[in-house]
Amino acid sequence: MSIVVETPAWALPRDQSVRARAAAVVPGGMYGHMTANAQNMPPSFPQFYDRGAGAYTWDVDGHRYVDFLCAFGPVLLGHRHERVEAAVAAQAERGDTLSGPSERMVDLAELLTETVAHADWAMFAKNGTDATSAAVRVARAATGKRKLLKASVAYHGANDWFTPRTAGVTAEDRLNIVEFAYNDVASLLEAVAEHTGDIAAIIVTPFRHDAFVEQELATAEFARAVREAATREGAALILDEVRTALRLDVRGAWEHLGVRPDLTAFSKALANGHPVSALVGVDALRSAAAEVYVTGSFWFSAVPMAAAIATIQEAVEIDAPAVIGRAGSRFKDGLEAAGRAAGFEVALTGPVQMPMLNFADDRDKKLAFAFTDAALRHGVLLHPWHNMFVSAAHDDAVVDEAIAGVVAAFREIARTA
Amino acid sequence: MSIVVETPAWALPRDQSVRARAAAVVPGGMYGHMTANAQNMPPSFPQFYDRGAGAYTWDVDGHRYVDFLCAFGPVLLGHRHERVEAAVAAQAERGDTLSGPSERMVDLAELLTETVAHADWAMFAKNGTDATSAAVRVARAATGKRKLLKASVAYHGANDWFTPRTAGVTAEDRLNIVEFAYNDVASLLEAVAEHTGDIAAIIVTPFRHDAFVEQELATAEFARAVREAATREGAALILDEVRTALRLDVRGAWEHLGVRPDLTAFSKALANGHPVSALVGVDALRSAAAEVYVTGSFWFSAVPMAAAIATIQEAVEIDAPAVIGRAGSRFKDGLEAAGRAAGFEVALTGPVQMPMLNFADDRDKKLAFAFTDAALRHGVLLHPWHNMFVSAAHDDAVVDEAIAGVVAAFREIARTA
Repeated sequence: MSIVVETPAWALPRDQSVRARAAAVVPGGMYGHMTANAQNMPPSFPQFYDRGAGAYTWDVDGHRYVDFLCAFGPVLLGHRHERVEAAVAAQAERGDTLSGPSERMVDLAELLTETVAHADWAMFAKNGTDATSAAVRVARAATGKRKLLKASVAYHGANDWFTPRTAGVTAEDRLNIVEFAYNDVASLLEAVAEHTGDIAAIIVTPFRHDAFVEQELATAEFARAVREAATREGAALILDEVRTALRLDVRGAWEHLGVRPDLTAFSKALANGHPVSALVGVDALRSAAAEVYVTGSFWFSAVPMAAAIATIQEAVEIDAPAVIGRAGSRFKDGLEAAGRAAGFEVALTGPVQMPMLNFADDRDKKLAFAFTDAALRHGVLLHPWHNMFVSAAHDDAVVDEAIAGVVAAFREIARTA
Repeated sequence: MSIVVETPAWALPRDQSVRARAAAVVPGGMYGHMTANAQNMPPSFPQFYDRGAGAYTWDVDGHRYVDFLCAFGPVLLGHRHERVEAAVAAQAERGDTLSGPSERMVDLAELLTETVAHADWAMFAKNGTDATSAAVRVARAATGKRKLLKASVAYHGANDWFTPRTAGVTAEDRLNIVEFAYNDVASLLEAVAEHTGDIAAIIVTPFRHDAFVEQELATAEFARAVREAATREGAALILDEVRTALRLDVRGAWEHLGVRPDLTAFSKALANGHPVSALVGVDALRSAAAEVYVTGSFWFSAVPMAAAIATIQEAVEIDAPAVIGRAGSRFKDGLEAAGRAAGFEVALTGPVQMPMLNFADDRDKKLAFAFTDAALRHGVLLHPWHNMFVSAAHDDAVVDEAIAGVVAAFREIARTA
């Protein structure tokens, strides 16, 4: 058994028994981003979950938490949101995976082109990786060029080009990747100059959300430089909104900067937990998008599209970024104040809708681990080194309950520190 | 508008109007394998579907068909199968996409390792492409080698390596692909000899199911040669059962040949239409599988896993390959006899569970197009150039209804031929 589990700080007997079963039939006991719950995590962190409702989730041992992971993004409106689940049930009654798409595909494409400022067309897939990879392919088909510029460390999916762990990936797979530093215009322009004439696309996330480090918003100067460089090179600017979809701005995450991409990849929150991703783009790339061959057996399924329609409509109607922003601000203020009161210099960095927890002078993350471990025992599911996610179901009462848990957690680590 | 739609042989007014809307907001009006419904198809072929139930599907204009596409494979037990949908509803009540996997992941991994002869472990994803690509990555991680041998034309997904249309794909992406001819041992051995020492994997489908041509079962000699070559080279033998999953043999499609792969990719029928794919493998590749980083936001969702458990259990209990095989044989016999009676030399080739329609002397597929066009108007959804799929819901009465439709269709084309 390759999972290292220290003695849990509280009893998770069922979680332990399911982990032991998993170790026998799943390589390493877990894989992908969910190894985050199995490795490099505080001892109280549960790996297996039983259910979700609104802003809460329950582990397999029956503990209830205010959920600040939201399935690492997909849960935008709260678990099992009534309007979304009603749309799902109605569509499921008719059909999901049929011998062709349903009308829902066209409804959803129309809704996205109305909602997202630069979107003239849309295509759908399952994974975020499908959407970012399709974007790159469309850019190459349109330009006939090869190089893809991306920020170093930035995650854009687990495809051969992007995956952060290179076991099983050949050097050939990465030949056309060129890296620059996020928010560093000089480094971007250097990369552009070095490969001028052969640049198919520049791909960026709306802000820097690498794991383990403080999050960083894009500067207006950087966003404009990326846009200008892409335009000058005749390359496509791809905005990777897989993680940010519908949380920052339903029209597109860089609208407040006045910068529009040519292609945007969406996934995660697009259907409030139902599996769908989307690539949207501008008219100039429409014929290239019609040329590439990207597909999957379930990419045309009607139920997740019905869920996406209900999710986007609700997000627009309630102004989800604002609602989630208010909840995120309340939590940020409460957590940071509770930390100070307990004698800790702690901050939630990045957009308040997707905050990252950071203690000062905590490079080895010992404080973050101790704190998130204690928070679990006080009913709050946080993450010590990955950005978290707030949902529209995190109303004032929920946030205040979470702050109370966080206050107790700070007291606990203050006693032992 | 780039879709070429000839005057439909019967009225599909709603389909036409949805196609027109799609043309405005989806590149080319449609993408991926679903362009099969929009291009290169008989004029009566509907593109948009409204619902499915058992062996039947309805287009958006309300026409009911006996469905021999089964969503291009996913529908194994019939649309909206009661046992599967009950499992889906029960799991959805608790949670689907949570902040970690549910116990269903382990239940499903245990079930697959019990069911599939060579499977010692399992991992899950969404697309078939995810599973074949992960298989290649595991093979490379295990061997430290680069080359991937595949049969020419064979489709193994729409990743950069495999996609049959190369718009937007660089030459670098394909540097490590080596092709041989299916069922041609000499060609296989030549490819192996040319790259000996640098072969990570050989990937094959259980039988040859390329579009447009007659299907071909694997010869025992070929299957054994593939196995021996992989073993001799220390390479992994990957069986691509994305399309065949649960339809030919629940233990693995080459069990009757006595040939076991090291890795198998499953998808499509695994959860009767719910989105999940799986990679299973032997113990020798377990640690390599734990090393690679493959993941997706929805790969750990509980509902499709609950659907897969119910689907596999039902498939094993009813012996789905046998049930579907009897239905497929009945349909093959009926269709071929009806053709002969009408003066046509026509055959369903390949496994009876996944037959391909072929008229003699019909290279331009004119007869196949005319026949499948007529069949639609007699309530039978067939495909003129792609293999079709029979489900366990195709009972004797349904098959006989389809044969009656096919008899009428043959009469119709005999009159006009």
